[in-house]
Amino acid sequence: MVAARPSGLRAAFRAVRSHTERLVAPLSAEDQVIQSMPDASPTKWHRAHTTWFFEQFLLEPHAPGYQRFDERFAFLFNSYYVAAGPRHARPRRGMVTRPDVAAVTAYRAHVDAAVDALLADEAALAPEVATIVEIGLNHEQQHQELLLTDILHAFSENPCLPAYDPDWRWRAAARAPGTLIIPEGIQTIGHQGGGFAYDNEGPAHRVLVGPVSLERGLVTNHDWLAFMRDGGYDTAALWLSDGFAAVQAEGWRAPGHWREHDGGWHVMTLGGLVPVDPAAPVCHVSYYEADAFARWAGRHLPSEFEWEVAARSGELADAFGVVWQWTRSAYAPYPAYRAADGALGEYNGKFMVNQMVLRGSSLATPPGHARTTYRNFFPPSARWQFTGVRLASFPA
Amino acid sequence: MVAARPSGLRAAFRAVRSHTERLVAPLSAEDQVIQSMPDASPTKWHRAHTTWFFEQFLLEPHAPGYQRFDERFAFLFNSYYVAAGPRHARPRRGMVTRPDVAAVTAYRAHVDAAVDALLADEAALAPEVATIVEIGLNHEQQHQELLLTDILHAFSENPCLPAYDPDWRWRAAARAPGTLIIPEGIQTIGHQGGGFAYDNEGPAHRVLVGPVSLERGLVTNHDWLAFMRDGGYDTAALWLSDGFAAVQAEGWRAPGHWREHDGGWHVMTLGGLVPVDPAAPVCHVSYYEADAFARWAGRHLPSEFEWEVAARSGELADAFGVVWQWTRSAYAPYPAYRAADGALGEYNGKFMVNQMVLRGSSLATPPGHARTTYRNFFPPSARWQFTGVRLASFPA
Amino acid sequence: MVAARPSGLRAAFRAVRSHTERLVAPLSAEDQVIQSMPDASPTKWHRAHTTWFFEQFLLEPHAPGYQRFDERFAFLFNSYYVAAGPRHARPRRGMVTRPDVAAVTAYRAHVDAAVDALLADEAALAPEVATIVEIGLNHEQQHQELLLTDILHAFSENPCLPAYDPDWRWRAAARAPGTLIIPEGIQTIGHQGGGFAYDNEGPAHRVLVGPVSLERGLVTNHDWLAFMRDGGYDTAALWLSDGFAAVQAEGWRAPGHWREHDGGWHVMTLGGLVPVDPAAPVCHVSYYEADAFARWAGRHLPSEFEWEVAARSGELADAFGVVWQWTRSAYAPYPAYRAADGALGEYNGKFMVNQMVLRGSSLATPPGHARTTYRNFFPPSARWQFTGVRLASFPA
Amino acid sequence: MVAARPSGLRAAFRAVRSHTERLVAPLSAEDQVIQSMPDASPTKWHRAHTTWFFEQFLLEPHAPGYQRFDERFAFLFNSYYVAAGPRHARPRRGMVTRPDVAAVTAYRAHVDAAVDALLADEAALAPEVATIVEIGLNHEQQHQELLLTDILHAFSENPCLPAYDPDWRWRAAARAPGTLIIPEGIQTIGHQGGGFAYDNEGPAHRVLVGPVSLERGLVTNHDWLAFMRDGGYDTAALWLSDGFAAVQAEGWRAPGHWREHDGGWHVMTLGGLVPVDPAAPVCHVSYYEADAFARWAGRHLPSEFEWEVAARSGELADAFGVVWQWTRSAYAPYPAYRAADGALGEYNGKFMVNQMVLRGSSLATPPGHARTTYRNFFPPSARWQFTGVRLASFPA
Ligand SMILES: [Fe+3]
Ligand SMILES: [Fe+3]
Ligand SMILES: [Fe+3]
Ligand SMILES: [Fe+3]
Repeated sequence: MVAARPSGLRAAFRAVRSHTERLVAPLSAEDQVIQSMPDASPTKWHRAHTTWFFEQFLLEPHAPGYQRFDERFAFLFNSYYVAAGPRHARPRRGMVTRPDVAAVTAYRAHVDAAVDALLADEAALAPEVATIVEIGLNHEQQHQELLLTDILHAFSENPCLPAYDPDWRWRAAARAPGTLIIPEGIQTIGHQGGGFAYDNEGPAHRVLVGPVSLERGLVTNHDWLAFMRDGGYDTAALWLSDGFAAVQAEGWRAPGHWREHDGGWHVMTLGGLVPVDPAAPVCHVSYYEADAFARWAGRHLPSEFEWEVAARSGELADAFGVVWQWTRSAYAPYPAYRAADGALGEYNGKFMVNQMVLRGSSLATPPGHARTTYRNFFPPSARWQFTGVRLASFPA
Repeated sequence: MVAARPSGLRAAFRAVRSHTERLVAPLSAEDQVIQSMPDASPTKWHRAHTTWFFEQFLLEPHAPGYQRFDERFAFLFNSYYVAAGPRHARPRRGMVTRPDVAAVTAYRAHVDAAVDALLADEAALAPEVATIVEIGLNHEQQHQELLLTDILHAFSENPCLPAYDPDWRWRAAARAPGTLIIPEGIQTIGHQGGGFAYDNEGPAHRVLVGPVSLERGLVTNHDWLAFMRDGGYDTAALWLSDGFAAVQAEGWRAPGHWREHDGGWHVMTLGGLVPVDPAAPVCHVSYYEADAFARWAGRHLPSEFEWEVAARSGELADAFGVVWQWTRSAYAPYPAYRAADGALGEYNGKFMVNQMVLRGSSLATPPGHARTTYRNFFPPSARWQFTGVRLASFPA
Repeated sequence: MVAARPSGLRAAFRAVRSHTERLVAPLSAEDQVIQSMPDASPTKWHRAHTTWFFEQFLLEPHAPGYQRFDERFAFLFNSYYVAAGPRHARPRRGMVTRPDVAAVTAYRAHVDAAVDALLADEAALAPEVATIVEIGLNHEQQHQELLLTDILHAFSENPCLPAYDPDWRWRAAARAPGTLIIPEGIQTIGHQGGGFAYDNEGPAHRVLVGPVSLERGLVTNHDWLAFMRDGGYDTAALWLSDGFAAVQAEGWRAPGHWREHDGGWHVMTLGGLVPVDPAAPVCHVSYYEADAFARWAGRHLPSEFEWEVAARSGELADAFGVVWQWTRSAYAPYPAYRAADGALGEYNGKFMVNQMVLRGSSLATPPGHARTTYRNFFPPSARWQFTGVRLASFPA
Repeated sequence: MVAARPSGLRAAFRAVRSHTERLVAPLSAEDQVIQSMPDASPTKWHRAHTTWFFEQFLLEPHAPGYQRFDERFAFLFNSYYVAAGPRHARPRRGMVTRPDVAAVTAYRAHVDAAVDALLADEAALAPEVATIVEIGLNHEQQHQELLLTDILHAFSENPCLPAYDPDWRWRAAARAPGTLIIPEGIQTIGHQGGGFAYDNEGPAHRVLVGPVSLERGLVTNHDWLAFMRDGGYDTAALWLSDGFAAVQAEGWRAPGHWREHDGGWHVMTLGGLVPVDPAAPVCHVSYYEADAFARWAGRHLPSEFEWEVAARSGELADAFGVVWQWTRSAYAPYPAYRAADGALGEYNGKFMVNQMVLRGSSLATPPGHARTTYRNFFPPSARWQFTGVRLASFPA
């Protein structure tokens, strides 16, 4: 994994961009072209789309004389920015065998050179330019994580279950017994002060939080196997109605990527198929499963505000870098949130419905990317991300 | 419409039950049997299901010697209570031509007589029994409203567009200019004190609300026609991503039940097809449309907490009895909420995901049913209920 | 069942029309309004549609001064005649609670009176008028059978499994061992000479048929149970590829309307749920099942030409009046067939693809309706008709 | 294109196998891995599946000591042979990025060497072995054509519309006015005598064919544009009911792969997007379209028997090597056809329903592959093959 980002915009740009290429190194052209489900994207597309982002939002408006690498790429590699023009249908991203991987590599080099030149004299940069570079780098980091979750999904669809990196291993959850108690109090939630943050982390605002207690540690596979043995997936009373409908429609009997095999549970990982490690945190569970597990355990999931206050205190174990943690908060704008005008205003705002907030970060999140105010979000049925569970409870 | 409920449990029971029958009076046996979509239910089913509710939860456990009217009805008329046993699949409710309407009428009479006998000596009733009767009556009132929205949907699917009641008329929205300002402050949200409330209205808890201002009046058809003329339904930038996908998939160009006809907009109502009245509040809009309209108007929807505080102040016009008002709050349990054990615990709790909260009540809500803490909820795409819009804004 | 049709067009009209009403007598208004699947139609619709057929094709063009009963009915009760104008979407036929059953009864009386008057002086009728009356009566007889298969399907969807006629019984198949051998020879196939026939039965043409032998008797439930016991539904090698896909997608383990219950096989009939009678002919099997059974038995299904030659010889048992018999012939136009101009040309011609021919008739076919040249047709997956199996084999 | 196959089994094997590799030469690894729809397969899969066919049916049973290249390949590259064991789900063929293209190339070399050794002493071969080699070579030739139609489909889904071979060109249809008249007579249909044929071409049997006349030439794009200008795609009366439903559901306005562009019709070909050539035969039309066109032209499609008799006479132009020609014959077994036991019996027999027969061959068919008795078949909605139209008519 890359170390924390170097200071200096140009150095940061180089570091983030080259980290993407390091992630891609184990993948063949064939691996990079396919799309294993509409919610996932080809590796090649991630590489080109993050490049287009700099071309479209940084170079086109701010690099005088910049020549687009290929006029067709704006159509091919725009994801969902309506204001940036028409775009290829998302479920058809896996059809683009040409331009090929080599062309995408050349595209990255072309844009990298232009950005590098633009950032040569950092002192002369307009603040707006620095802001766009920052967004672009954070954007690329998000896609670095998606690139890994998407290739894991693709490999899990291959009957041969190939390994992305044969040396990849889960690590055990921290041993962190006990709970953190948050008494009732008004707290400021959301990003304030310096440093980069997404628009959805603000405006900072005051919220009455607590009383509540949060577990210091994460739920483990050991815990989850107990839930399974106790008939968790068969007991309707534990589930939200939509959740149990998903269990039945999808035939869920265990977390995502788990497979029963030779009489024991295994899990498909970036290192291939390995036996489930009871000491590792549970991963690849949907919100529905997290919620049912909490009910079975006589607990709740924390709200995203409770999580943020707890994480700020520094007393949570595995808050970052292991698994994203589902909260019971639906993804919604903070009070007085208003999306920016133009295409970049589409970055977060238009997805604020039908999704649940996750907090923290995962082992696939680039170091330095997340923070206590960071809001990740996925639909309650999603299981292909590195998603886990931290429990909370209310005082009796 | 029925007047507010009489005092006395037996009198209340008689009043609510006979109100259902008055609502059904204009409908033939044919009208009562069909199911126009999986989300709607046949009139006959509503009549029998509300009756089963009393049989299952009141008479079976609390009326010694009670004989079920028909053993098959528990299967046919249980809606979703897993703990109460197996049940007929929801989308097949319209297949039950037998037992016929006359049998359902007899079923109601059978259960009414047994309940009447049970309630004869009110003073002798266990508190638990009174509680179940209260829930049963409130349950039946909810179905009274659904009965009307469902038959309106069924009639709107009939090319002849029949009228449920030819004399039925929309009334104009109250003229209530101006806004109500709520300054920041800790407020107690949720039901407390006496009187009936659903479990989802509690526990009462403290929330920091405001600053925010709410419009005193509702959005009208006049306002909505301006949104339409301004290209509201064609402008992706105004919509949540899922919302615009619904617009395109469903071909929405106007609120639900609206039809362009002879060069003007009409709306299918309980009184049949009538021209849209600009002075009436807009109705049959989804959350997606309410949200897009608010964005177009430079506003937001209120949160359910803001709405509750405002309604408590008595300064909102048309808070009740006109249209349910979408809030920007996803339907979620209040802190420390825990569903009751047993089947009645399934009443509300298991639906707390993927839905948005509506507050107030509509012209189809029985008088006396709603209150300031009442929480209604529907998926963000739902349009067949009497759902409208009240706007809010944040101080600059 | 009605006796064979009386001579005289007016008498025939009265007989056929009143037979429809006799079939409907056991059904309530509720029974008549629902549609249990897109391929089935409500009883009420059958009654009105057959009436519209006379109004549209006979009275409108040929009865001077005829006034339509209701202008909306042409839209509501046209089935698929594009040339006769726009029509209600087929899957929404069950939404028409109004006009009600009483209105449909009045519609029938209105049209009956007008036709009766038109036919008063039969000698004066133009030949074209007599032809249309004949088509209309044969059309109504087809719908008489569909009315029964459709209400049986609707009742089978009702958890209470009501009986259309509690006295209804299956009868045993004729005991008719042995085969009928057809040596190679040129045969004239299709309708010729006098009497009514549909356009799809012509032009009569010469076909080389044989050598082949046909079983004189039908396949029975006894035979089918042996197929089931031998793993017929689990053995992919016995099935057409599309057929086995249907077995797996639909979960077929037995013929349509069969249910395992208290350790034995029962079948839903017009008389309600009854134990399967081994001596009765198998019924409610799809083409896919008929074909797989034949392969299991080391036989084939006959072609429609082979069936016609055999039936003409009079040596088949149960050729008519028990179950329709699947043939291995895809439904296609006879050489030089050309559909008539205008709406009536749509009667048969446009369905000549993706269906298989059935020959004979069933216990639900009105007496006198079928003949040796008659061609019935359904998609190979259809099971809700009275469809059975007769086997054939080729000389070694 | 390859010349006709050399004599000698080993030489033929080498010729066919190397022709496949020549077809693949213009395609990158990325091109070869994707699957553009469930009915199409990846190039890489075609290459491996045809190789597996020899491994499974030739080497395993007949080459003593043969070692399978990779045990997993039987699962990955079996298409639909149930008797040969379990297999990867067809719609997921595009997920197999590993084994990669290089592994498939090595697989082909491994099997080629083993077959080459087996065939070294041709005189010593058991007749059964020669038969399996023949089937394997014909099988591979079928996949050579599918490989081209599938990659054309994949490229047509790519917004960049890449060319498989920039020099590829359509050629004009032969100028062949006039008709061929077949008088009534008994004809022997199906393969007889020497040379290879598929099981579905027999048993040869006698059929009464004619009188009928067939056009000597094919329908051209010029003819089709006239049909389009005359509103062919908008006129329900010209279409089979299922056909017009497909027109509306799929939005068909022109043949497959046609695109309106800069005011004129273009067509996506193996040479990329080119203007439609009026003199070329129409291609990429479904059976539904062919049938509607014939009706518009006052004609019919020929039966497969009529086509075979006409082709035998040598008087048809463009019978082979241009476009497959839809017949009005549903794909069905010839009388007394019985599929062989074992997996190879699944080759043709289990697909004999829901498809229409095409006769002749196309420009993508390897020379020497087709013959007058050859029966190709596709569902009536298929448009991605090289399918065109020849008309017939019956004497008045
Ligand atoms: Fe992105
Ligand atoms: Fe209910
Ligand atoms: Fe009809
Ligand atoms: Fe194959």
